Formats: sequence, structure tokens, C-alpha cells
Amino acid sequence: MEAEIVSIGTELLLGEITDTNAVYLANQLAELGIGCRYRQTVGDNLGRMVASLRLAAYRSDLVIATGGLGPTADDLTRAAMAAVVGRELTTDPAAPYALANPVGTAPGLWVEAAIRPDPAILGLLGLPSAASAAEKRVIFVALPGPPAELKGMWTQEVLPRLQKWLEATGAAGVIVSRTIRFVGIGEAAMEARVRDLVEESQNPTVAPYAGDGECRLRLTARAADKAAAEVLLAPVEAEIRKRLGEWIYGTGDARLESVVGQLLLERGEHLVVAESCTGGMLAQYITSVPGSSRYFERGFVTYSNRSKQESLGVPETLLAAYGAVREPVARAMAEGARRAAGVEWAVSTTGIAGPGGGTGEKPVGLVYIAVTGPDGLTTCNRHLFRGDRGTIQRRATAAALDALRRRLLGLEATR
Amino acid sequence: MEAEIVSIGTELLLGEITDTNAVYLANQLAELGIGCRYRQTVGDNLGRMVASLRLAAYRSDLVIATGGLGPTADDLTRAAMAAVVGRELTTDPAAPYALANPVGTAPGLWVEAAIRPDPAILGLLGLPSAASAAEKRVIFVALPGPPAELKGMWTQEVLPRLQKWLEATGAAGVIVSRTIRFVGIGEAAMEARVRDLVEESQNPTVAPYAGDGECRLRLTARAADKAAAEVLLAPVEAEIRKRLGEWIYGTGDARLESVVGQLLLERGEHLVVAESCTGGMLAQYITSVPGSSRYFERGFVTYSNRSKQESLGVPETLLAAYGAVREPVARAMAEGARRAAGVEWAVSTTGIAGPGGGTGEKPVGLVYIAVTGPDGLTTCNRHLFRGDRGTIQRRATAAALDALRRRLLGLEATR
Repeated sequence: MEAEIVSIGTELLLGEITDTNAVYLANQLAELGIGCRYRQTVGDNLGRMVASLRLAAYRSDLVIATGGLGPTADDLTRAAMAAVVGRELTTDPAAPYALANPVGTAPGLWVEAAIRPDPAILGLLGLPSAASAAEKRVIFVALPGPPAELKGMWTQEVLPRLQKWLEATGAAGVIVSRTIRFVGIGEAAMEARVRDLVEESQNPTVAPYAGDGECRLRLTARAADKAAAEVLLAPVEAEIRKRLGEWIYGTGDARLESVVGQLLLERGEHLVVAESCTGGMLAQYITSVPGSSRYFERGFVTYSNRSKQESLGVPETLLAAYGAVREPVARAMAEGARRAAGVEWAVSTTGIAGPGGGTGEKPVGLVYIAVTGPDGLTTCNRHLFRGDRGTIQRRATAAALDALRRRLLGLEATR
Repeated sequence: MEAEIVSIGTELLLGEITDTNAVYLANQLAELGIGCRYRQTVGDNLGRMVASLRLAAYRSDLVIATGGLGPTADDLTRAAMAAVVGRELTTDPAAPYALANPVGTAPGLWVEAAIRPDPAILGLLGLPSAASAAEKRVIFVALPGPPAELKGMWTQEVLPRLQKWLEATGAAGVIVSRTIRFVGIGEAAMEARVRDLVEESQNPTVAPYAGDGECRLRLTARAADKAAAEVLLAPVEAEIRKRLGEWIYGTGDARLESVVGQLLLERGEHLVVAESCTGGMLAQYITSVPGSSRYFERGFVTYSNRSKQESLGVPETLLAAYGAVREPVARAMAEGARRAAGVEWAVSTTGIAGPGGGTGEKPVGLVYIAVTGPDGLTTCNRHLFRGDRGTIQRRATAAALDALRRRLLGLEATR
């Protein structure tokens, strides 16, 4: 089974937005073991959309269109798909082929159709035209362009249908992937410790990836069924855990803020944060997790020095002597926040996110992160992050969550 | 003149990397006034690369391939391009069609060729086959995949050749786009007020787009030069401003948080935020702007009821009588934050971000946003946002920034 993604939108062609939807879908297809040989991008023009969707149907079995589904005049995906499948598709959200939109208003489409490819086109494409020119079944899926809507509809509507379809057609074999997530170690350092696995493993393959403040290894096994794939994955994962265990915070699509939240929940303990350079991002990550009110008590975004004194009780003398970006200030922020909120745990950040404000002694990217806990111990780490303002803020936020994770797990507090 | 970008690389199809090169090139082409109707992505497979490049040559005048130029075994772009133009292309960096690589080692290609499109393909694509089936001149450009190499080669080698070519063919002319950004009005309501412009305007065209908590109109004019394009754009933009002025917060790549920050900076006034349901996101948006410390004093993320009392002085009786999600609580939060921080402006949010915690009376998505200012006036808006937790938080954050913008501009406080 081969899939093809058709991204629709003139703003994509003009470079006004980056096609993150295509990346998301490509990852999802890879995890399902569905190949993807082509991707197309086309503007909001009915004729060209029809041509692109038809071409995709000729050479692929699953055609996924994104964008062009909303209520405005340039939303033409439904009409283009109707032209390709040769039947009318109403806008009725109760139509049998409509996919519910859990986030927005525009419904998606799931349409199965018989398509007879044009031999001339197949020749151009280098496909064997005699064999393929027979009628074939093609599934057309139309998803909305806004990423949150696309992901919601994919997860709730498309994925279950695809899985059922793969089972029904007995699509031979499975590809099972497992992602292992690391924090507190760079991609190069991580890879250096598993280079033999990355270079020599064939099944499963082991591939490293880097993100802001974290990195990942993806193990991918091909086997007859899921159980056989798991048997291939298990020893390689065990070896990776032996070598890199303390930096592993989760697997799959685990998020560091959820892992930390779960640890707090299990202990029945609560958290306060005191942020300077991360400017609310640490609280935002934590509260992005549903149910975080069960362990997150409050946050202070103490941007000014006066707010560090008034909200957290950081002594004026400390700020006057050191400035805001120094270890004693980070410690005082965490301890002051814990005292003010009356909870078990506090995390603080203070640093220079840039692009301005750096000096030779305190360069852009310098960040102190302190954690204080119910044992009365306050630990503090000094970091020097590279990148632009947003990158430094994201890396500092990940490091703050990791510092808390390590304290909650009783791992060494400083690295 | 129409260009087509062909991105080459299996890792793109697998979603392992995001195609930022295509975004860069699309922007560059738009600035040159070169249209771009299609983009293709294809893996490292010679036959499929030939098919994609040939298709691009049939329907476009400038074919730009990225990736697949390096020394490794899967770098096949040169061979595929040779197959399409029908002549050998050596790897000699001194060949007349070689483009120097100022950053890396692999040279690029600039090849002009005569191509005779296949009428069957043109028919499929909806192009007039009689007119176009004649031989046509096509420029093929191959650029390396690493973004730094691509940008270096584009700037130093391709851009001068393209500009010379545009002048020589008299195709010089520009496309000028302007994006107008709206907040506080939905895409459908926005479009309803300018539907005649969206449907009838030819030059400039007017196209609507939606994002989380904001929407946009893009005006695109084609003209001989930039000044002539501006003359076409001005009356349409003026008409849009007349109809929708109060919802316009900026143009181009303006961000709402920067616009609000600039208004505060101009007045020399300061801001504190008090967040419940947005959980730090409002502070994070504001502090994502470089220099925001000049007007952002502090933020309170008062997630628990106790923190609303202790940090903001919200009366316990109020919380007991109403719960946290009610207008009087939002007002007390803003007023308490302003008092605590001793600054001119305070914004508060309280609501139910979900997915749990909703009731019939207080459903998920219900959010109150209050603003209090130096005039002592506190205004409050009630919203009901749709979407998942993250979407509701983003929409509430945009609405909070908009509420402050409207107060700073003296626009009506409630809608």
C-alpha cells in the first residue's frame, strides 16, 4: 500500500507557512508501515487541484489531502475530490463519508472510489502501464489545514479506519517503531554511546533525532506481526537502557511535563515555579497537561527585580550584589517560591534569553536552574544554551523540568 | 513565467526532516515575481525523480530541484536531470552548467533545455494541449539539500542568473503581497464583510486565512514594478480598513504580542498578568518578544483557588459563592494583580480549558478575560471557545492580548 499526501494552499506555495502537516502525516504513515513515494503541494485552484489529486490516485492507493476544507470561497478540496471520484460530495456533516472535526467546524472526508489510471500517465511515471491500467480501489481522505484540527481528526477518525482497513486487507507484515526519549544529554553524546547500534543494526534499525532540549532514538522493526516485531525490539531497547538509562524520561509520545506531573501525582506532592528568563513557558508547559491542577499550585513570572523581592522574598542585597542571573538568586527564588506557596517542590529559572542583555561575564544563553524539595535541599545547575531567544527559552524550560525529574527520582542532582 | 520546486529526499517523505528549503525558495520566487503553482516531493529513486522532473518541465518554465547532489550513493539528482534534458551532465565542477558551492563541496547545476510536453499529460493537467505541446525552453536548477549550502548557492549563483534572465526575456515584473492581520473576529465573519473583494478582485487578489485566535487577508498584486503594485494595493487595503479597521492589529509578519508591547512602550506604561486557565501562556507570549522586560513587570499563574486569594487578594467569599470561573473573579484577579504589582495595566484570565472540568452551566471553553487600567476602569469579556485544551488556551491568550489592545487604543471594551 502506497500513500500520497497532497497539501493544498496558495500560502504554502508562497512560502508563507511551513507544511508541518505533511511532516506529521508522513510520520504517522511510516509508523503504520504505509509507504509514501510522492508528496504534492498545489494552490487554491480547482483545475490544478483536480489534476494533482488525479495524478495521486493513479500512482497511489491512499490519497490524503490537507487544507481547503473551510467555509470560505477558496476552500475547494471537496469539489476537486468530487471531480476525481466522479460523484457529488455534499457538505452535510451527516453524510456517510464525512469525518467529524473534534476541534473545529469543517468536517473531513473519507471516500473510497474505483479509479482507472490513464496508461499515458503511467508511462510517464515509469509505472508498468499494462498491469496497472486496470481499475483500482483508492481511498481519498480530506483533512482540514489548521494543525490542531488535522491532528484531532487524524487521531479520532482516520487512524481507526486505516487500522481496520489494514487488518481487513491483510497488508503483509507490520512495521513497529518505538521512540525512546532523552533529556539532559546532547544528540552527539547520546549517539556516541550507541554508535555501534546506529551503524550496524538492520532489524530493528536505530536512528537518532534531535529536538529542543531533548533528543530521541527511534527503533524500527519489520516483522510478520506485532508480537514478532516486539521480540526484535526488546533486546535492543534493553541495551540502550543499560547504556543511557538515566537520561531516558519516556517512550513513544511521552512528554517531559507529563512524566514529571505523573511523578508528583504519585507522591501526592505539589509544585510551584518561579520564572525569570523562561517568562511563563515553564508554567505553560506544565499546565498544558490535562489535570495538572492536581499538582501545580501556582507560578510566579518574576520578570523585574522588584517582583523577585516582593513575590519571592529574594533579598535586595543579593540582587544588588550579584544581579539577577547568579546561582544564589536562583536558589533564593526557588526557596522563596516554595515558602510563598507552602508546597513541597519549587523550581526556578533565571538567565539571559537574549538577543540583547549579554555581557562577557554573563553571555546570552547563561541560565541558572534551582530546585528545592521537601527534604529542604536546594540544588542548582548552571547552563549555557545556544540558539535564538525562543530556543534558549525552550531549552531552559526542558532543563528545568529535567532538574525536577532527577530530584523526584533521586538521581544525582547536578551534572 | 512559472516555477516549480522539486524537493528530493526519502527523509522528507518519511517526515524525518521539515522542508524549510522549499519555504525559503518559495519566498525568494515570490519576491522575484515568479509564480509557483506546484511543488513536488520525491524520494531518492531515479525513476520516480525522472518522472517528477519531467512533469515539472511540462507544466513550468523553471524547475528547481533541491537535494540529492552529494557524494553518497543515493544522490541521484544529476542523473535524473540528465535523463530529462536528454544529455550527459558530468560531475566536473568546471562544466559550464556547474554552480559553485560557496559553503560545501557538491556543485549545483543550471541547465537550459528544449522540452516537448506530452499532450496526454497536459490534458490530464487541464492545460491547453494544442498551444503548449510545442517545444518550450525550460531552465533546470539543481541545488544541494543542506540549507546553508542551498542559501549560499541561491544567493551567489542562481539569483544573479535569474535576474539577468528575467531582464532579457522582458518578464521583469513583480508580485507584491500584503498580509493584513485580524483578531477578535472569526474567519467567516471577516470574509462575510469583504466577500465581494474576495470573489471579484483580480489584481490584487484577496484571500482569507485562519489561525488560532486570529485570521488574515492576503492581497497579492502583479505589476511592472513595486511602485505600480503598491498603487494597485492601496485602494483595496483602504477599503478593507474601512470595513474591518477595529479588528486589524497589524500587517505583514506582525505579532499581536509585539503590537501590544509597542503600545505599552510608547506610553511608558507597565503590565502585570494574572492567569488561571491560560496557565502561563499569556506571560510566555508577552516575554517571547525581545525587550519585553521594558514593559512586562511580572505575572501570576494562580492555578489554585488559594493562590488567587494569597497572590491576588481575591476574596474567599467570592470564590466560595461563584467558583473560580465567573466574571467577578476575573475582575478581582485583574484588580488584585494591578495592586500587587503597582503598575498601570493588568489582564486576567479564568476559565475551563478542558478536557475535563466542564459542567452544563460552565462548559469547557468558557473563559472570562478582564482588563484594568490606569483610569481605574475594569472591563470584562465572556468567551466560549471551541477546540482541545491547547486550542482553547491559545485562543484565550489571543483574546486576552486583544482585550488589552482595545483598551490601549480606546476602542470599545466589550464586543
